[in-house]
Amino acid sequence: MAQLTEDQLDLFRAKNCAVVTTLGPDGSPQATIVWVDEEDGHPVFNTTNWRAKGGNLRRDPRVSVLVWEDGNPYRYVEVEGDVELEEDVGGEHMHRMSRKYTGKDFHTPVDRLIVRVTPRRVYDYDDD
Amino acid sequence: MAQLTEDQLDLFRAKNCAVVTTLGPDGSPQATIVWVDEEDGHPVFNTTNWRAKGGNLRRDPRVSVLVWEDGNPYRYVEVEGDVELEEDVGGEHMHRMSRKYTGKDFHTPVDRLIVRVTPRRVYDYDDD
Repeated sequence: MAQLTEDQLDLFRAKNCAVVTTLGPDGSPQATIVWVDEEDGHPVFNTTNWRAKGGNLRRDPRVSVLVWEDGNPYRYVEVEGDVELEEDVGGEHMHRMSRKYTGKDFHTPVDRLIVRVTPRRVYDYDDD
Repeated sequence: MAQLTEDQLDLFRAKNCAVVTTLGPDGSPQATIVWVDEEDGHPVFNTTNWRAKGGNLRRDPRVSVLVWEDGNPYRYVEVEGDVELEEDVGGEHMHRMSRKYTGKDFHTPVDRLIVRVTPRRVYDYDDD
């Protein structure tokens, strides 16, 4: 497992968004923007259980998570790794993510997955 | 080929950045942030010929390009498709990209590739 530095983890702790890329059934890349955070050095996000990302990650756990400093895309960290999936019982994790970004509980916290990434490779970009 | 709307193409025409995801030798996703534009309905970007992206795209032309409105990640468009590669002779294309984003020529416009994407699937997100 690759280790992220505190500076890199801070990008995940702040209210920055991230692009998550998963692999479709034919192995082609599919990307979306998500809320993100970190737990014990692991990037973490939340997705619906049955939408594309959830289905893709059940089939192939390989993922790229790229987080950038809000308003400054010349500072970013990309983490490549494998995911572990956990059912978000009661939507508690999604509520927590929503409170971080919006200050409020999430509107429809049903049937969701917590996705934790074990980093295999970390790419750090800082052009400031 | 999927068609992008004028609103979607405007995101590529503006000074927004994009996350480009290519596939590594083992098929795993690798993402970076790039400058982007559009030509005749095709997202276009520029990369070094021999770095990861160039090598990946020569091996497997499948790509995801996700462009978001600068400062507003709740408005974005993701394009999945296949690339066509063209040598950027004299770095003219890279200079043009650099002038769009920085107002100046590029510092080292050598050994670069123009990458044009033929869209297969377009995903549009707007949470405003």
